[in-house]
Amino acid sequence: MTNSPVVPEVDLSAGGRQVGHLRVPQSRDDSGWGTIQVPIVVVANGTGPTVLLTAGNHGDEYEGQVALLDLARTLDPGSVQGRVIILPAMHYPACAAGKRLSPLDGRDFNRCFPGDPFGGFAMSLAHFVDSVLLPVCDYQMDLHSGGTGMDIVPSAVGHILDDAGDDAGLQAKTLAMADAFGAPITLLLREVNAGPTLLAAAEKHGVVALSSELGGGGRLNPAALAITKRGVRNLLRHAGVLEGLPATGEYGPSRRMTVPDLAHYVFAPADGIWEAADPLNTTVEAGAPAGLLHRIEDPAAPPIQLSYKATGLLWCARFAGRVKAGDPVAVIARDM
Amino acid sequence: MTNSPVVPEVDLSAGGRQVGHLRVPQSRDDSGWGTIQVPIVVVANGTGPTVLLTAGNHGDEYEGQVALLDLARTLDPGSVQGRVIILPAMHYPACAAGKRLSPLDGRDFNRCFPGDPFGGFAMSLAHFVDSVLLPVCDYQMDLHSGGTGMDIVPSAVGHILDDAGDDAGLQAKTLAMADAFGAPITLLLREVNAGPTLLAAAEKHGVVALSSELGGGGRLNPAALAITKRGVRNLLRHAGVLEGLPATGEYGPSRRMTVPDLAHYVFAPADGIWEAADPLNTTVEAGAPAGLLHRIEDPAAPPIQLSYKATGLLWCARFAGRVKAGDPVAVIARDM
Amino acid sequence: MTNSPVVPEVDLSAGGRQVGHLRVPQSRDDSGWGTIQVPIVVVANGTGPTVLLTAGNHGDEYEGQVALLDLARTLDPGSVQGRVIILPAMHYPACAAGKRLSPLDGRDFNRCFPGDPFGGFAMSLAHFVDSVLLPVCDYQMDLHSGGTGMDIVPSAVGHILDDAGDDAGLQAKTLAMADAFGAPITLLLREVNAGPTLLAAAEKHGVVALSSELGGGGRLNPAALAITKRGVRNLLRHAGVLEGLPATGEYGPSRRMTVPDLAHYVFAPADGIWEAADPLNTTVEAGAPAGLLHRIEDPAAPPIQLSYKATGLLWCARFAGRVKAGDPVAVIARDM
Amino acid sequence: MTNSPVVPEVDLSAGGRQVGHLRVPQSRDDSGWGTIQVPIVVVANGTGPTVLLTAGNHGDEYEGQVALLDLARTLDPGSVQGRVIILPAMHYPACAAGKRLSPLDGRDFNRCFPGDPFGGFAMSLAHFVDSVLLPVCDYQMDLHSGGTGMDIVPSAVGHILDDAGDDAGLQAKTLAMADAFGAPITLLLREVNAGPTLLAAAEKHGVVALSSELGGGGRLNPAALAITKRGVRNLLRHAGVLEGLPATGEYGPSRRMTVPDLAHYVFAPADGIWEAADPLNTTVEAGAPAGLLHRIEDPAAPPIQLSYKATGLLWCARFAGRVKAGDPVAVIARDM
Amino acid sequence: MTNSPVVPEVDLSAGGRQVGHLRVPQSRDDSGWGTIQVPIVVVANGTGPTVLLTAGNHGDEYEGQVALLDLARTLDPGSVQGRVIILPAMHYPACAAGKRLSPLDGRDFNRCFPGDPFGGFAMSLAHFVDSVLLPVCDYQMDLHSGGTGMDIVPSAVGHILDDAGDDAGLQAKTLAMADAFGAPITLLLREVNAGPTLLAAAEKHGVVALSSELGGGGRLNPAALAITKRGVRNLLRHAGVLEGLPATGEYGPSRRMTVPDLAHYVFAPADGIWEAADPLNTTVEAGAPAGLLHRIEDPAAPPIQLSYKATGLLWCARFAGRVKAGDPVAVIARDM
Amino acid sequence: MTNSPVVPEVDLSAGGRQVGHLRVPQSRDDSGWGTIQVPIVVVANGTGPTVLLTAGNHGDEYEGQVALLDLARTLDPGSVQGRVIILPAMHYPACAAGKRLSPLDGRDFNRCFPGDPFGGFAMSLAHFVDSVLLPVCDYQMDLHSGGTGMDIVPSAVGHILDDAGDDAGLQAKTLAMADAFGAPITLLLREVNAGPTLLAAAEKHGVVALSSELGGGGRLNPAALAITKRGVRNLLRHAGVLEGLPATGEYGPSRRMTVPDLAHYVFAPADGIWEAADPLNTTVEAGAPAGLLHRIEDPAAPPIQLSYKATGLLWCARFAGRVKAGDPVAVIARDM
Repeated sequence: MTNSPVVPEVDLSAGGRQVGHLRVPQSRDDSGWGTIQVPIVVVANGTGPTVLLTAGNHGDEYEGQVALLDLARTLDPGSVQGRVIILPAMHYPACAAGKRLSPLDGRDFNRCFPGDPFGGFAMSLAHFVDSVLLPVCDYQMDLHSGGTGMDIVPSAVGHILDDAGDDAGLQAKTLAMADAFGAPITLLLREVNAGPTLLAAAEKHGVVALSSELGGGGRLNPAALAITKRGVRNLLRHAGVLEGLPATGEYGPSRRMTVPDLAHYVFAPADGIWEAADPLNTTVEAGAPAGLLHRIEDPAAPPIQLSYKATGLLWCARFAGRVKAGDPVAVIARDM
Repeated sequence: MTNSPVVPEVDLSAGGRQVGHLRVPQSRDDSGWGTIQVPIVVVANGTGPTVLLTAGNHGDEYEGQVALLDLARTLDPGSVQGRVIILPAMHYPACAAGKRLSPLDGRDFNRCFPGDPFGGFAMSLAHFVDSVLLPVCDYQMDLHSGGTGMDIVPSAVGHILDDAGDDAGLQAKTLAMADAFGAPITLLLREVNAGPTLLAAAEKHGVVALSSELGGGGRLNPAALAITKRGVRNLLRHAGVLEGLPATGEYGPSRRMTVPDLAHYVFAPADGIWEAADPLNTTVEAGAPAGLLHRIEDPAAPPIQLSYKATGLLWCARFAGRVKAGDPVAVIARDM
Repeated sequence: MTNSPVVPEVDLSAGGRQVGHLRVPQSRDDSGWGTIQVPIVVVANGTGPTVLLTAGNHGDEYEGQVALLDLARTLDPGSVQGRVIILPAMHYPACAAGKRLSPLDGRDFNRCFPGDPFGGFAMSLAHFVDSVLLPVCDYQMDLHSGGTGMDIVPSAVGHILDDAGDDAGLQAKTLAMADAFGAPITLLLREVNAGPTLLAAAEKHGVVALSSELGGGGRLNPAALAITKRGVRNLLRHAGVLEGLPATGEYGPSRRMTVPDLAHYVFAPADGIWEAADPLNTTVEAGAPAGLLHRIEDPAAPPIQLSYKATGLLWCARFAGRVKAGDPVAVIARDM
Repeated sequence: MTNSPVVPEVDLSAGGRQVGHLRVPQSRDDSGWGTIQVPIVVVANGTGPTVLLTAGNHGDEYEGQVALLDLARTLDPGSVQGRVIILPAMHYPACAAGKRLSPLDGRDFNRCFPGDPFGGFAMSLAHFVDSVLLPVCDYQMDLHSGGTGMDIVPSAVGHILDDAGDDAGLQAKTLAMADAFGAPITLLLREVNAGPTLLAAAEKHGVVALSSELGGGGRLNPAALAITKRGVRNLLRHAGVLEGLPATGEYGPSRRMTVPDLAHYVFAPADGIWEAADPLNTTVEAGAPAGLLHRIEDPAAPPIQLSYKATGLLWCARFAGRVKAGDPVAVIARDM
Repeated sequence: MTNSPVVPEVDLSAGGRQVGHLRVPQSRDDSGWGTIQVPIVVVANGTGPTVLLTAGNHGDEYEGQVALLDLARTLDPGSVQGRVIILPAMHYPACAAGKRLSPLDGRDFNRCFPGDPFGGFAMSLAHFVDSVLLPVCDYQMDLHSGGTGMDIVPSAVGHILDDAGDDAGLQAKTLAMADAFGAPITLLLREVNAGPTLLAAAEKHGVVALSSELGGGGRLNPAALAITKRGVRNLLRHAGVLEGLPATGEYGPSRRMTVPDLAHYVFAPADGIWEAADPLNTTVEAGAPAGLLHRIEDPAAPPIQLSYKATGLLWCARFAGRVKAGDPVAVIARDM
Repeated sequence: MTNSPVVPEVDLSAGGRQVGHLRVPQSRDDSGWGTIQVPIVVVANGTGPTVLLTAGNHGDEYEGQVALLDLARTLDPGSVQGRVIILPAMHYPACAAGKRLSPLDGRDFNRCFPGDPFGGFAMSLAHFVDSVLLPVCDYQMDLHSGGTGMDIVPSAVGHILDDAGDDAGLQAKTLAMADAFGAPITLLLREVNAGPTLLAAAEKHGVVALSSELGGGGRLNPAALAITKRGVRNLLRHAGVLEGLPATGEYGPSRRMTVPDLAHYVFAPADGIWEAADPLNTTVEAGAPAGLLHRIEDPAAPPIQLSYKATGLLWCARFAGRVKAGDPVAVIARDM
């Protein structure tokens, strides 16, 4: 039993479509017993697995939010076997602000798991997801995009798990789920220390789980939105919650890639304006110019030229023009 | 004579290339006599007109900043007849932050003219530009883009001036300058009450002046950067500061358009995520769907559909996914 | 003609009921051309005077906001002769925050008149009210309450005008209007230097104008709400916009009082918790104890006892428990 | 032995009246070894139990602060048998600001127990109370009110404890203590997961403990202050620290009530101005109108009507006029 | 007559010693009619000139504040012929915070003259000083120090006025007043555009006026305090308000110096830690090393060495270790 | 193996001089995968102990930062036997701001040990130092100064450890190391509950460790800088990393002192301006005046006089002029 102070307005075990909120305590100076209302939709029918779909873990990542709002309105309970739990705007204060981090306390929600029931809004909500929702799930997908700063080739993202014991089965199921989702790329990361993310939390509960990177630049990308809408229905078909087979995108099966280490990153050594040498999704060579960093403080100085340190696909590229020292401006992925 | 407290480190009347700063007083708690250093470059030789080129009026508009940094480094004084004054990162605190508005006081620098010598950093700098630089200029161009929120078809922007008296000549010169700049579009606005912008201030000094909108989305757009780099050299050729004729872009001569009134705007009636129906630079019809506004607070409610109220070119489109009530999501331009 | 950048969505000269917004420019980092939507309702029919009713000048004063929202929904255009312009939540950002001052810039809207078209949201809106609305008005009433800090005996508030020339007529009309409004008290203040309030601005335009203080304590006071609802309809009857005679409250005709000078105030000399000796609306004597100021920092020290310096009605009393040095804790009114 | 860095200026084991401070480390940029001085008063004599009385857990709750300041000044050590430890303004930074939450870090002090010696001011102080004061106490009462947002019928508040083992005795002692305190209502809550409150912390130490809700609205309520002043002396009499029997209020013995579950709450579904249908302390019926939520953004829309979902006493009512989505506007209590 | 909303609690025209406050309106969210209490002391007797002494124009300059608090307590009215008006902590919010700039709005009070009666606290107070106090003064001295950032050789500071007409007499009187004050240095500045300082405002009223720089480093410098205490009594003797002759310091008569232009400043070209080559009050040579600027971001890079550009006395030196680009680190004065 | 997400750019086990950064994740709204670059220098050669030298634990303490930047540039790898790891600006965001506390989250880095890999920038960096660097160290010295608020006689600072078991050896080594460092004073503190400092963390790893207080006042003190530069080379000689014997300062061997308890502190009881009776490094007597606290709010009240409560050396004195209630203004040290 959880000791969560979060109260759902919906009955997680009831059938049909329910639309309501999670009521998460958030004390204010002028409302000591105030709550924040996090939207939740449950669509359940018959027997089958439980799939938890989340978006708005970061508030400035829009493809998942719109795809899940659409799914929540249009998923016919009669067509469902099992249960779909949808949190279309999970970290609600960040979503309402259109920011990655919470305007309440600056927290990154994806660094809050497994949470703390009385650790403030984000920790309390993470604890509810971890202690109430994940234990009843079979599948979980947390829909991310590149956010305001980065643009990323639309990808499902999974973990390379330990290859022994229970994890071996989980690994195979994860890959099958990613194939079904059908993004252009499936990016697999060896996250021995994944840290306090929702994806790692789901895996600790034995849930077959994926994250994603579906666009970015702080905008709603129409092509990425189409991939996301198709992907979430593909996933429900794969789980057996919806009938039918997953649909493949016009780009064919998902390409399995990885980012082996920090040598596949290019970091800005100083503040400036970033002028990239190549568009996203280009194949680039180690040693080739990655772009120019323009420093406005000294118009007499030439821009700093940066180079790639690895060969592969320009999978993720700095989108926002202004960068700070230490920001990644390029991430290269390699086929596995 | 000006009573400006701003001190330039360069001699505005000297020849050759000079790189330095405007020293603008900005008192801090720990530095009562502190100054902010605004980069300035002057390239002068022989006789000819004075051209003032500015970028970074808004800090999150990058094409102009990079094009002027490039021009400042590469313009050979020996090739110049006249004088080019370059402020590549004019509203420096906003540029250093990558924000439209100043992190010092939240001011929009383009609402600060004609300034006030002791009204704080932005007002003081605007007063210097207005009382020291504009009086010695023949031509002025202030390079803007759409910023973080909007994406705009690359355009020179000018004013439709009163058609009598001195302004008639100024109007013709403005159109000729815009033709020379050679952006895909020249947008002309009837700004009888232009308000406190640099463009309006320049016109009050009788300077032939343009603004621009060269991209947006908070990124450095490579295509818009190429237009800007070509445009600023075109402008110097047109003024006779550089030899040769303006070069035309692959899209041909600039198309003259206008935005007649607020009926050519679509505004978001509420907060939400904006899903546009059309990409930028599409021809759209009055009455057609402009897009959907998704409201995250109520997953049961359908998105709000908005329609265009005018026929024309989708000249400017909301870029950032999250909008607030009252934000424009589309602006339609018509041929003149 | 105004040079206001504010655009109304309603046609001020059309008949019937119109509900829309004033669109006031407010640039944000992520929306350079953003606007704030200030609700406006116009109900017009036939011929007759124009009455401007405003509430939400301060955002934490609720009786006027609710009374005008009610009036805006229920006023039958067919019953009107003339025009009623209603701004039920005028300083919208403050109203949406439930704060006296603007969360945008900390401004007190009632210190912004006659405004400045490009001086930021509050100044720009004040300029619109002053340059567009007030010139077409015959009567104006700006509905205030005591706000979060103070509680006040429900009162209409007017100015004691110069007794010569045009003002003599205006004074009589003001008193007649206050009598018609019918609050328990009409408080008249000699405001030779009224400062930049809406009331003073209206008087400069020759409009018959009142302010009010209708409750307070940061709450919606039901008794004061009833007085306000009756009062605004009384006012329309008095102006001839509605038929019929003003209705008198159960407390009878309005009592004319004044606060002659600062000797009728009691100020807290230090920070502390205020324990009043008397409830609001009590008749008090000069020299009698006004209350105790408890200082939490030193539990060994006795509370500071303050005394009234004038005899009269405790018209306004500190409501919020915690006070700062310099805060008024009591204001005494005298019969005229 | 505690590892608390908090140092009391008073000797907790000495007799007589001592007035001093707890010195709690709070590093500032300009005072690395700065401390915050939390007032503490100890009155001790002879032999008897130790009673800890606290107020200012939330800074905008005034009845307890004033009652304890009064008690601290007036309690004659000669009349005492045992020890009374008084913290009249416990969460001092919040008290000095008149805010529920700390202006230092936004913390709610009543969610900080059992604290952390090096977790910042609030956690460090909570740890001192928990590890130094509670272990020496027999009785503890933490005096709360409704704060700025809520108004509450004056009540002692206790927990419904597990009915087996040690807790059975503690429960009986708690009820007896509440009866002695003598508020109009004794509200008992089943707090199996009470969270990190001072009340729960006291119970973990086996201390007979109560909280309270004595007024609200951000003001010092004279009637509630009288109840509080009588209550704390009643409590000392009940404990045997003072001679004599507890005095009963004019309203008779305390009425035992409870709030069974969230169905006894009414929550605002959206932001707006709350107009309650009933005054506090009214008996209301499930299904009856609870009030109207006025939304200022759309004057054409009718207010949202909310209804009670339970029958009972309107024990707690929203006080502040402006509410946000998720705020409770009414809480219904039932007789036990 | 002034239209100032500021109300003094003291009678400026009465005799004897009066201690009170200027009551300056400052609206808060929780106190709409709140005021800030600025301490004022008036000591008057017999006939003679009026001297206005002010300190705390900047809140982190302490020598003047302590010297005037001392003078205010110890000046015997019986010894006075004329009137002394003392504002020992003029810009009170900045003084209470120990900051140069106001914590209310970030304003530098010495850039607020002649003020604006309704322009906010600082502007309103400046307007009162300018429109009420300066018109009745014969002499004025505004006591400054170097503040947190700078350390300065104790100096009276005056303006080099136009040498024709009325100003010629004022110049001579200013020099005589500075000689009487008797700081080690009298620094004279040609301030043709002095900007909105109190000193310039006083001169516009024809008041014989001085400013000063008496120490710095954010500390109370005992030596500078002694100079200040002696100086203010010297000044009263010079004016004839006190009997006797000005006393000379152990360093002898004041040395007249000037800072001719910006070439006598050394500015930090970048952020870093400043290591000065010489202590304050050293005679230095143009071309000699002024110090090293250590940049923490790149430990491989050597520090930037800066040199003096003028020969003279190191009159003012950067005190705080951390500097930002554009901060002055040294100011050289020359004998006149 | 650590689970730290911090990645060093240098190879801790390689020889020669390496200059690079620790890359510490710090998510921003516009850079989700952003990092902060903390400078690190490693100089290694041959065989010998590892010495970790750190400065910038607090950002406004400059002597250590400059001394370590100097050491990092000038230490010849060929002269080294063993390894020196240098973090010259450890808590980088605080150092770049010149503040004691982090501008990111207000944390005091010296209260963050042993850290938390995912607890935010400061906790994550502390965890790296604790889990990666300290385990490979033999000696550690963390260079502090008094910061903005305090001025301190230059001192090495060590702990009085338990005198049994392993600690006995560690104590002797600590004293020997302090003697070698050679500051004017070695201050030893009995820190049974030292709290979460780097010094305590180092001791838990069995590292011979010291802290220091080398100046203060927010400035770079030249005399303290010379002591620090000599001290860090002395320490390397003592450890055998450099050849030769430690050099003694002109003041002779380090004097061993201690601050026994809080009775050796003088605290300000209220806010005000502090005027010290004695300069730093004076021998003072219990009962003698320590100074005057001037309260600006009431010019009629005399300053509060405070007295020393212990006899000894005025080892640490309030530097900044403005103090808050609870700030220490004097700390007395005694010979051991």
